[in-house]
Amino acid sequence: MNVAILAIGNEVLCGKIVDTNGAVISREIEGIGAQVVHREVVSDQVEAIVSGLRHAYEYADFVITIGGLGPTLDDLTREGVAQFFNEALVYDPKIYEGITGYFAHTGRETPENNKRQAYQFPTSFVLENPNGTAPGLRLDKGGKTVFLLPGPPNELLPMFEKEVLPVIKERLEVPMVTRSYKLCGIGESLAEEKILHLYETYPMLNIAPYCSISFVDYVVTAKQSDARMLDVFEAAFLDVLGEYWVGAARDELNVTVVEKLKELNMTIAVAESCTGGMLASSLIEVAGVSEVFLEGFITYSNEAKMARLGVKHDTLMRDGAVSEACAKEMAVQLQRLTDAHVTVSITGIAGPGGKTKEKPVGTVYIGIAIGAQVQVYACRFSGSRDRIRTRSKDHALHLLYKLLNKVTDI
Amino acid sequence: MNVAILAIGNEVLCGKIVDTNGAVISREIEGIGAQVVHREVVSDQVEAIVSGLRHAYEYADFVITIGGLGPTLDDLTREGVAQFFNEALVYDPKIYEGITGYFAHTGRETPENNKRQAYQFPTSFVLENPNGTAPGLRLDKGGKTVFLLPGPPNELLPMFEKEVLPVIKERLEVPMVTRSYKLCGIGESLAEEKILHLYETYPMLNIAPYCSISFVDYVVTAKQSDARMLDVFEAAFLDVLGEYWVGAARDELNVTVVEKLKELNMTIAVAESCTGGMLASSLIEVAGVSEVFLEGFITYSNEAKMARLGVKHDTLMRDGAVSEACAKEMAVQLQRLTDAHVTVSITGIAGPGGKTKEKPVGTVYIGIAIGAQVQVYACRFSGSRDRIRTRSKDHALHLLYKLLNKVTDI
Repeated sequence: MNVAILAIGNEVLCGKIVDTNGAVISREIEGIGAQVVHREVVSDQVEAIVSGLRHAYEYADFVITIGGLGPTLDDLTREGVAQFFNEALVYDPKIYEGITGYFAHTGRETPENNKRQAYQFPTSFVLENPNGTAPGLRLDKGGKTVFLLPGPPNELLPMFEKEVLPVIKERLEVPMVTRSYKLCGIGESLAEEKILHLYETYPMLNIAPYCSISFVDYVVTAKQSDARMLDVFEAAFLDVLGEYWVGAARDELNVTVVEKLKELNMTIAVAESCTGGMLASSLIEVAGVSEVFLEGFITYSNEAKMARLGVKHDTLMRDGAVSEACAKEMAVQLQRLTDAHVTVSITGIAGPGGKTKEKPVGTVYIGIAIGAQVQVYACRFSGSRDRIRTRSKDHALHLLYKLLNKVTDI
Repeated sequence: MNVAILAIGNEVLCGKIVDTNGAVISREIEGIGAQVVHREVVSDQVEAIVSGLRHAYEYADFVITIGGLGPTLDDLTREGVAQFFNEALVYDPKIYEGITGYFAHTGRETPENNKRQAYQFPTSFVLENPNGTAPGLRLDKGGKTVFLLPGPPNELLPMFEKEVLPVIKERLEVPMVTRSYKLCGIGESLAEEKILHLYETYPMLNIAPYCSISFVDYVVTAKQSDARMLDVFEAAFLDVLGEYWVGAARDELNVTVVEKLKELNMTIAVAESCTGGMLASSLIEVAGVSEVFLEGFITYSNEAKMARLGVKHDTLMRDGAVSEACAKEMAVQLQRLTDAHVTVSITGIAGPGGKTKEKPVGTVYIGIAIGAQVQVYACRFSGSRDRIRTRSKDHALHLLYKLLNKVTDI
């Protein structure tokens, strides 16, 4: 089943509103195994709407329009659909009754221009809108179905879930199943190289990589009848990429790490230099983190590293603040200072300044102490200051996740 | 000048990534007085890209494609454009040299599949990409211009501003002028109410508000011939909204604050509870911050507030950790401890837990000490945990900015 989504409105088109509606709906459609094949944003003009509908009809079995059902003169979705199908719009007193009822409920009179919302097509079905005045409409035409939905998310999403998603699901010929894998510590190119043979071995699977700053997510989809191939694929996939695997695509690594710490009854403290609070902030983003998170130090200057954590002057002189020795001292001293079970330190050169010949921009050391065990990882990240800092933070979470998993193995 | 934007990629189409790129670029295009007339998202398939280009060409003088220039087999924008124009793709050793240089810089070998990024058209111009491997391309065809830009925002936006926006601006028939204002500490509805009369008084100006979590940006555009009206408008605008004004729409408040501190030769230290490193991280995002930023404390637990900053046990018992008294002690003690000229403290309830009858979720206290002056601000923010934390951080920057501006007045 192919679905096209047409967002209608100048505010979306000119970037005043970010089209999150389209993203949310698309995810839900893909989640049931249907495919979003086309999305378009058009202006509040009848010709633009007609042209958008024509494109959408090229591609899809279902067309969903979002927006343009309001009461004002620039709400022209109904008119656009009427022109596209060459159908008349008919005033429906029942819809108008619903609209006046909505206003009465909020103690207001119905403004005259809301009458525009009471028009539908002779062959359309009305989709109730308990959260606003504009009802949705559904039209079945030439074996295809068009849904006209309102733009405000609190009206759109309940209507979409109640009136649209079940209809698409019902018409899926082949039920689909999906699995996903989140990878950290490997780039998209290298990951693809490592599993290139799997694309050939498993032609019945749709294997799709999604890349973000620190992660590569793989979403693998199969027909229900090929579901067992997902197990075989998974074994082969994790055989080559398992060391980078940190959960499903939807999993957030900070949440996973906080849950793991809770499960292990372990407390954590962090000491950051170049990331400057990113790691702490990411952990504290998780509600309920107070059970495990004790405190953090942002020791950006050398003085702070010495005064707060007791990093030795000698270490800073001999090895520098960006060094294995410094990262190790930061993590170990922090453990002594706070009595946290787990401590993490990050020190690096995020650039653009601060680089030396031996230590280019992107050189980062991550120290992790768990009980009596201390490990320091030397990393080299690329990109802008912001990306290097984000990658440092995410890689620290990744390394911590791996080590915490080993704790349970003992 | 009409512009169409074509976002290419399954991850945008299926909703995994929200199309913020399209919104940001659209705003900048509208900001110079050109018009975005069409936006479309298509899949990583050559036919879909060709069809998207055909639609875009219907509408626009400029077509901007975003994404699909990566190294993997599903990056097919170059191939789609080649087919649409019936042009050959040619390997360009110079581009490849740039790509291998990028990898060498990060100490890695160039993966074989990055070679795909070294192809261009006989008639295209190469747009340099200092932040990634994929160069952009520009093609002039039949009086229209197509730009092929990379998808990652940190690669896309600098390239867009350097290579695309000036070209569109140059070809505008009626030169337009623009001013913008960033507001913090006021919501969109209230801001609109306060300047409603200006829309009527200045019909020759296009006044557009853009709302984000913590800010409302106003972009005001006029024809060159009406340019002097911008001065008159500005006076009236700042008369009612000046107290919320923190710079132009593009200005980043963290950068402005760091620059101000440098100018004043003042050092800063921060102590955070609910924001947990967000404020420090936002300051450290600014390159060269080491001149002014000394250190930060993330005193999430009551124990840390006492042990690190010397907040009194009595204060925590009597007023609680989320209180004016606690925020004040945090800022003042931090100043004693670090000798920083300026200290900022944030303590609040980000939720969903931790609320009391008197202190609902969103209650936040921000303390700022500058020299011997200490001020504490009681705030009440709404929204999710993440939004409350973000608003707390941005509001702290806003208050600091205002106070630092007064320092120079003395």
